[in-house]
Amino acid sequence: MKILIVAGLPDFIPNESFDKYIGVDRGSLFLVEKGYQLALAIGDFDSVSKIELEKISVSTDRLIKLPAEKDLTDLEAALDFVLEYFADAEIVIAGALGGRLDHLLTNAYLATRPKYQALAPKMTLVDRQNLVTYLLPGQHLLKRKLTYQYVGFVQVETKDSLAIEEAKYPLKAEDNFSQIYASNEFISDQMKVSFNQGMVIVIYSGDSHKK
Amino acid sequence: MKILIVAGLPDFIPNESFDKYIGVDRGSLFLVEKGYQLALAIGDFDSVSKIELEKISVSTDRLIKLPAEKDLTDLEAALDFVLEYFADAEIVIAGALGGRLDHLLTNAYLATRPKYQALAPKMTLVDRQNLVTYLLPGQHLLKRKLTYQYVGFVQVETKDSLAIEEAKYPLKAEDNFSQIYASNEFISDQMKVSFNQGMVIVIYSGDSHKK
Repeated sequence: MKILIVAGLPDFIPNESFDKYIGVDRGSLFLVEKGYQLALAIGDFDSVSKIELEKISVSTDRLIKLPAEKDLTDLEAALDFVLEYFADAEIVIAGALGGRLDHLLTNAYLATRPKYQALAPKMTLVDRQNLVTYLLPGQHLLKRKLTYQYVGFVQVETKDSLAIEEAKYPLKAEDNFSQIYASNEFISDQMKVSFNQGMVIVIYSGDSHKK
Repeated sequence: MKILIVAGLPDFIPNESFDKYIGVDRGSLFLVEKGYQLALAIGDFDSVSKIELEKISVSTDRLIKLPAEKDLTDLEAALDFVLEYFADAEIVIAGALGGRLDHLLTNAYLATRPKYQALAPKMTLVDRQNLVTYLLPGQHLLKRKLTYQYVGFVQVETKDSLAIEEAKYPLKAEDNFSQIYASNEFISDQMKVSFNQGMVIVIYSGDSHKK
């Protein structure tokens, strides 16, 4: 099962169909206005009018209105719902990588938190220029994605154990000293990546291919 | 001395005057077209035409053309220049928080790297919605900035030692479990922040005040 979650106002959503649609706060309105029936609309909905909230409510199987002040973000509440009802689903999240930098960082690092680690290998964040995926420890073959020229790596508690082979810029774990390696490129259809602890955030990106 | 560095195409630059202007790659053209004389234009300049590069070169005291393939980014090369010639300057960097997420993360975390630690307390990154500063270990009084409603904290190797007092959401170090604390707010003109190792990235942000 594939689920599209739209959090906020996305600058891009994938051109494919999903089995379920989930709207987070204003993202619900975005999806409803595109004609989708939602499995869930969740948020404090402070950013939509009463009329807009009514419009959302008639096109969603379930509406959960959260208090404005709370310990978890609206997107976290949506992921908790996915963990409870659709734990095996692949999840694509749009609208989570722009705007406020504290939100962007929270969202980009959500999958690295212990609570969401089970979702990490099946979770993707997208915007117009970036596609973000998550790797658990082990050996991985990354596939080239034709629309993205570059691939970057962010190490989260890997203790610099990341190694990269068959890439434009190969990296040996013993030469690894930086938390972030940006702007690597594929030299064939795949690239080998391995590390033995923590998590790696993989960022596919392009300069402007979706503009 | 205050230096404005423009890296790439900024969506916002501060409305104040600086002592020196430095352009990074296409950021040089942005500044030159606004009529500024540059202390330095630096980059591989792959993103500007020959005519644009000529235009930059007549309005800059020093032009450094870097190779397209290199170990450090254009912005790092600019910071190395600042470290060498203007190590005591306050630095504001615009145009470094958008576009490719691997670049954005590299830029946001630059000041946390040992090489640039001396610049960290005097370095600010800005875009339309965010103002990013860096704290070294110790006790700090953060001042409210009226145009930003929210303040977020990213801990970098603080081992969860961050504590926050006199804020809407106070935090005791013993309750600290998350790398990122977003969406805090001031309840007076200042907020107390302390930690004993690593670095803290402070993100002031607003929902849309500069739109």
